Parts: sequence; C-alpha cells; structure tokens
Amino acid sequence: MDLRERQLSSESVYDGNFLHVRRDQIALPDSSTATREYIVHPGAVVVVPLVYDASGGLRVVLERQFRYPLDRVLIEFPAGKLEQDEDSLLCVQRELREETGYTATEWAYAGVMHPTIAYSSEHIDIWFARGLHAGPAALDAGEFLEVFTASVDELLDWCAQGLVTDGKTLCCVLWLQNVLSGRWKLNWQPA
Amino acid sequence: MDLRERQLSSESVYDGNFLHVRRDQIALPDSSTATREYIVHPGAVVVVPLVYDASGGLRVVLERQFRYPLDRVLIEFPAGKLEQDEDSLLCVQRELREETGYTATEWAYAGVMHPTIAYSSEHIDIWFARGLHAGPAALDAGEFLEVFTASVDELLDWCAQGLVTDGKTLCCVLWLQNVLSGRWKLNWQPA
Repeated sequence: MDLRERQLSSESVYDGNFLHVRRDQIALPDSSTATREYIVHPGAVVVVPLVYDASGGLRVVLERQFRYPLDRVLIEFPAGKLEQDEDSLLCVQRELREETGYTATEWAYAGVMHPTIAYSSEHIDIWFARGLHAGPAALDAGEFLEVFTASVDELLDWCAQGLVTDGKTLCCVLWLQNVLSGRWKLNWQPA
Repeated sequence: MDLRERQLSSESVYDGNFLHVRRDQIALPDSSTATREYIVHPGAVVVVPLVYDASGGLRVVLERQFRYPLDRVLIEFPAGKLEQDEDSLLCVQRELREETGYTATEWAYAGVMHPTIAYSSEHIDIWFARGLHAGPAALDAGEFLEVFTASVDELLDWCAQGLVTDGKTLCCVLWLQNVLSGRWKLNWQPA
C-alpha cells in the first residue's frame, strides 16, 4: 500500500515569535482530501554528557527547568534549538557550554528522534559527550535552569518512577543503557 | 532557586481543526516578563502490544504510518488522542482495536511521557497489552496504516540503525527493554 499523502496547497496560519504553524490541503492515498496543521520547526539537539566522580563512577549531567506548557519543573538532558543553517555538532557544543559551562574533548552522534510526528516537523539529534571540563555557563537572557549530576542507576530509577517524563531525555536514556551494555556502538570523535 | 514562571495574561492565537495555539505573557523568576507560545493538547495514549509466535517467541505489534509534517512513513506503536473526558485505558483499548483489530485480556500502565515540553501541553500515557486476540480493524475515515509484528531484537536493531525515530515509540522501547530484563515492574490487570 502506498501510504503517502500529497500536498495540494499550503498556507501559513500563525507566524509567532517562536511557533510557526502551517495548514495544508492534502490528497490521501485514496485521493480524497484532508487538512494537515503542523508546526514548522528548525530542529534541535540534545546531549548525554558523561562525567566521572572521584571514585570513577559514571554520572550524567542533567538540568532542572520550568516548562510553562506543563506548568512544572522537568528533569532534562541539556538541549537547544538549531539556529539558521547551524551545524548540529556546533549547536550541541554551544548549548552544552551555554547551559552548563561544560566543554568536552570527545563527541559521538547517536541518532535522531522525532518528538511529535503528528504535528511538528521537529527532529532532535542525540549526541554523547565525554572528557568534560567545567567552565562558566552563559545562559540566555530569560533562561533559568539548575545543573546537577546523577548516577545512571538514579536516572533509571527516576524514569521508572515517573520522575523523568521528558520524551527526548527518555530517548537519551534508551541510548545510554544500550551503549553502556555494549549493544549499541558510538563512534567517538575529538572535539 | 524558584524556577517557576507565572502567567500574567493568556490569549488564543490560533484555533484550528486540530491545533490550538495560545500565547501567554509571563513573569520569569527574576520578575522580568516574556512570551510563551504553546499548543494546548488533550493528551494521548500509546500501547506496546505483546504477542507470541508459533514457537513461543515474543513479538510486538507495530504500525507503518505516513506522517505529513516529516514527509515520510514512520514505524510506531499504536497510539491515539484522548477524546473529551475519555479514560486513558478505555482510549488505548479503543485505539488498539480500531487501528489493529486486536483486543487484549490484560493491560498494564507503565508511565507517562511528555513529547514536546517546550511548546505543547501534550502528555502520552504508555500502556502494555497482552493476551491479544485478532479481530477486524475499524480505521477512521482518512486513516491509512499498515499493521505488522517484529521481534524485540529486530525492533532494537531498527532503533540503533535510525529506522525507528518516533519519540513515543522509542520511549516504549525503553520501557520494553527494562520490563523484559526485570528491572522495571508492570502491574497487570484484567481488561
């Protein structure tokens, strides 16, 4: 079966500071017509930053950030939106430095996830970072967040308990677990 | 640090057939003001349906569906949107039956994920189903999808290879892996 939908027409219906909404008329596989409304998004990045405590135990760098649409503070891996024509690796290096102060000597691209396939074009590239060095954070004006670290066991328990519910962060945990078990491989590259 | 943002005013800026966008003026933790634009969403459900092949091997029921904002066919677990005041379990039972034809004798609630914390209020309840019985599907008008099954190893390989990128489905895979390893527990209940 050919599942594709074909664009018949497209219009911008909301062009905000942050959200850009389009409404398209489309042809369905059976040639009937329908409407699709969706967010046009530039894409984003998220990073799993690996650090080691004094006794060599693996920890990850996380953030607590208030997320207004959900009216609550959520636990997340550091993330951010791609700027116009920005390279994914340069973006994730920038976001990690700005939000947490950390720079990293090695990076690995894990994969991509699509957070909201029904109504957004957004993709999020998932990166890993290691060889971290602390430095000064440089938050954007109006950006407020707390940086902290957790062991992998703590993070997994929080996911099971419903204390970590952010989709991109849960996808990172899937990657983290399979990388640590050796099932999924990363290709590390120097920064 | 108190990370909360406080609503000063709120207006509807786009009220479509599917997407409902609001723009709020807010007070930041330092009392400066900012704007938040976000989708108001009723919430959704997703299900990991467990089936066994003739030799007793575990398989999961998946779907292939064209997702217009990404202009491609994606692999997903069966999912759907909550109707007004609909119970989460009744919704996921309805969606599984309508989209795949399957009914299940046992259900377990796993947890919740938030796909798009920056710009949508959407939450997705993650359910597991077992004791599946095939029956006729009843797709909505204009709904086109293919139902198929995969082994857990196949599914994990597809995630590693970038062939499964849907966020809710990857979160389900995180649950599936940890449930199968015995690390995370489910509380099964009869349908």
